[in-house]
Amino acid sequence: MRDSLRLWIVCGLLGASGWVSTAQPGPGLRSALEDYIGSHQREIVGELVDLVSIPNVVSDPENTQRNASYIRGMLRDHGFRAEVLETEINPLVYGELKVPNAKRTLLFYAHYDGHPVDPRRWKQANPFTAVLRDRRLEDGGKDISGFKQLKKFHPDARLYGRSVADNKAAIVALLTAIDALKAAGVALTSNVRVIIDGEQESSSLGLLRALPRYRDQLKADLMLLLDDPVHPSGRPTVIFGARGAVSMELTTYGPKFGVHSGHFGNWVPNPGIRLARLLASMKGDDGRVLINRFYDGVEPLHEEERTMLDAVPDDHANLMKLFGIAAPERPGLTLQQALQLPTFNIRGLSSAYTGPDARTIIPDIATASLDIRLVKETPLAETTEKVLAHIRAQGFEVVESDPSEAMRARSPRIVKVVKGGGSNAYRTSPLLPESRQVVAALERLFGERPVQIRTSGATFPVATVLIQEIGSPAISLPIVNFDNGQHSDSENLRLGHLFTGILSIAAVLTM
Amino acid sequence: MRDSLRLWIVCGLLGASGWVSTAQPGPGLRSALEDYIGSHQREIVGELVDLVSIPNVVSDPENTQRNASYIRGMLRDHGFRAEVLETEINPLVYGELKVPNAKRTLLFYAHYDGHPVDPRRWKQANPFTAVLRDRRLEDGGKDISGFKQLKKFHPDARLYGRSVADNKAAIVALLTAIDALKAAGVALTSNVRVIIDGEQESSSLGLLRALPRYRDQLKADLMLLLDDPVHPSGRPTVIFGARGAVSMELTTYGPKFGVHSGHFGNWVPNPGIRLARLLASMKGDDGRVLINRFYDGVEPLHEEERTMLDAVPDDHANLMKLFGIAAPERPGLTLQQALQLPTFNIRGLSSAYTGPDARTIIPDIATASLDIRLVKETPLAETTEKVLAHIRAQGFEVVESDPSEAMRARSPRIVKVVKGGGSNAYRTSPLLPESRQVVAALERLFGERPVQIRTSGATFPVATVLIQEIGSPAISLPIVNFDNGQHSDSENLRLGHLFTGILSIAAVLTM
Repeated sequence: MRDSLRLWIVCGLLGASGWVSTAQPGPGLRSALEDYIGSHQREIVGELVDLVSIPNVVSDPENTQRNASYIRGMLRDHGFRAEVLETEINPLVYGELKVPNAKRTLLFYAHYDGHPVDPRRWKQANPFTAVLRDRRLEDGGKDISGFKQLKKFHPDARLYGRSVADNKAAIVALLTAIDALKAAGVALTSNVRVIIDGEQESSSLGLLRALPRYRDQLKADLMLLLDDPVHPSGRPTVIFGARGAVSMELTTYGPKFGVHSGHFGNWVPNPGIRLARLLASMKGDDGRVLINRFYDGVEPLHEEERTMLDAVPDDHANLMKLFGIAAPERPGLTLQQALQLPTFNIRGLSSAYTGPDARTIIPDIATASLDIRLVKETPLAETTEKVLAHIRAQGFEVVESDPSEAMRARSPRIVKVVKGGGSNAYRTSPLLPESRQVVAALERLFGERPVQIRTSGATFPVATVLIQEIGSPAISLPIVNFDNGQHSDSENLRLGHLFTGILSIAAVLTM
Repeated sequence: MRDSLRLWIVCGLLGASGWVSTAQPGPGLRSALEDYIGSHQREIVGELVDLVSIPNVVSDPENTQRNASYIRGMLRDHGFRAEVLETEINPLVYGELKVPNAKRTLLFYAHYDGHPVDPRRWKQANPFTAVLRDRRLEDGGKDISGFKQLKKFHPDARLYGRSVADNKAAIVALLTAIDALKAAGVALTSNVRVIIDGEQESSSLGLLRALPRYRDQLKADLMLLLDDPVHPSGRPTVIFGARGAVSMELTTYGPKFGVHSGHFGNWVPNPGIRLARLLASMKGDDGRVLINRFYDGVEPLHEEERTMLDAVPDDHANLMKLFGIAAPERPGLTLQQALQLPTFNIRGLSSAYTGPDARTIIPDIATASLDIRLVKETPLAETTEKVLAHIRAQGFEVVESDPSEAMRARSPRIVKVVKGGGSNAYRTSPLLPESRQVVAALERLFGERPVQIRTSGATFPVATVLIQEIGSPAISLPIVNFDNGQHSDSENLRLGHLFTGILSIAAVLTM
């Protein structure tokens, strides 16, 4: 626990149960909050470094428990009623902070578990001992030794370590926002509930299975998800949805074993051309998916939504240069427009060998690994069925495991389809009152509209299920920098983003 | 040298320069030859085992020289004028045997080098110490110890070792055929020249470069190539041609590095679908190649050729069962008909990962490795140009190495084409007098027409160049069994094939 924190709690106990508002939302509040953050940087960074020091990979149950207990302690220290909620797998941490005359109840979602680490690949002694660098590693960032004693940090300085960004920063930001508002004498306008997931990196299975049991405890009017990065522009961002995804693998068949392409070429069928022709039937040169009714239900955007997409400051020219591409896959679509549609992505291909290992054979099989991104209007089960129907319509017999001798003898066109995991998309309408309130709160505090992302490209399966189970809308309120290297061996948090993220949360807590 | 051989040479020296014909072509000759072979099996097998015992991989120059010297000695022992011909790489062995009143000069081609070996993979102590098994290993073949002392061998017995089939058996068969004819008192009707290649398994480069120098020495009216297996039916076989081949690798481009398929799917182009659509444009569901003018020059078969193809006893039903296929790639074509046409084979595909390693990315590249089999009417250079023209006609820019940043920024559709090695097809018309003479000679001896293969599927690059440089037709007169496992760690020779092969050569030597 931080010393300043102890002091604050003592002061809190001495004060009345309601906070006195001395700063008003808008520039005045922002300046008061910035003063608080500016004079507490050592404590804020220190609290995150301490939290990161508890290893949090899912295969380490002892430290998983330590994380949960420690976070429960943090919540209590910040005035929450807090408890550890057990699940079939990793525990959750739950906290609740009631305020008088609350307009609503907000539920914040974050997670304490981290992606697995391979310590040998990290450029620091220990992924759980955070290192501060004066800028990005790729830009020649240098270690700042003894950084814990510093009182001020440059906003471009970056903390490196597992979960500094994904997602422990969110926990510290939320608690600091509450500290800062209290110090500024500004009352929270909502009751605050918080649920800290213990296995987001492995599908949140524990949380999802425990949801029916804890549903009432988690009830809220609006969910705020703290697990995304902000827009690359660095501007405060709200995200109203995320695509779903489903993976599948298609395998076509040639001979039972690779046969000599000279002795049998033209006579023994080649699985590669069958796969190529099947895939080619599924997507056109213009990037449009050709599977029947693939886009069914996707409606034209509301004018306000179109304006919102156009306002996202994506630097298309720079992205194209970064990726080395001359044109988007679907010519004429901006990135944001492209993200509103489901995709058909060939993520991998294999058949025998290419390169120096290539042999003059007709291969036995050819395989394509696909991932299909979904939007709210294209649910997983229906989309999977459309793909299967399309394959059958090309004259293939669809099987789920390698064909038997009898089937091989009978059917000249066989495709094995192995369905992988998947999750549905979610989207909260940006036109809802709650959505407008969040956007307005950020606009008031920062003096400009936040970047509004109607649908983010990546999946967020737990969001979809939370919305379904708790029955309230969800909006993502990200904090960390876009280039945080999440899941990699260079995970990092730009401190300027952390400080700004605290402001964003404070704005929402006072809306 | 074999004792019987010594004896034979002594007898030969005592005899006159011309041989006296005591047996006539046809059943009488066959029976005389079979008597000779039947009573010399130990010597024939022994001579092959001794020859195989000299290691013959191309990376072993000392043993390569030993092979050449040893074979020169064998040729001399059998009455040839013989010499080692140096090349830039491995030496050749040349032999010549003149006969009075020769109708023509025949040039036999064989090779003494073998495919590389990995001794650990062999089911015998040493790939160069031949082992005799009572049947195929796959059928439970058991070692016959002390087999060198046997006088008689079952025709189904198989000798296992490197080059027992490919191609040292041919050398022994040729020399034994001459022995057998001499013993039967039947005169050779042709002068015999023989050239034994020292690096057939690595493109015969030494021979091909040395050809201009030795052209006159190798001059002949007809070349007989001893380096193929006979038809799977086991019947005596003549082969009039072989397909050529050219390999190439096509690579399409997505982003410079794999990018998240959620964040950028629909916007960053996918290289896999570009490759699939390109490949699909090249070959139809009916197996017909769609590249413009791909089949140009391929004329309908002469009626006699059609009859010849139909007479090949291919067991289509059995092959389809073996390969587990329900229909040929080009429905309605027999295997022999399919072999008369050029092919387009996708021998390998790769792009990022499939299976458990698959990741949700848009891959950077997708690659197809192709091999295209050629026939005499579709030469290598022209065919390659047609493929390139087709790719360009699909709107792709063709490059030979990975595109520069500038090209990526300019061109949305790029294909890298890396051309591999290749060789032209050859074919001697089955309607030529020389072709008819060979077929008639075999028919006379065996009492039935041999299997006539108009075009064999595999390549035989050296044949094409020999025909071109020496200017005479070439016919392949195979000896060894089809399932000889050439190049593999189970290379084997069925002894019945060796004994019959001696008869085939004898037939041609007396035509």
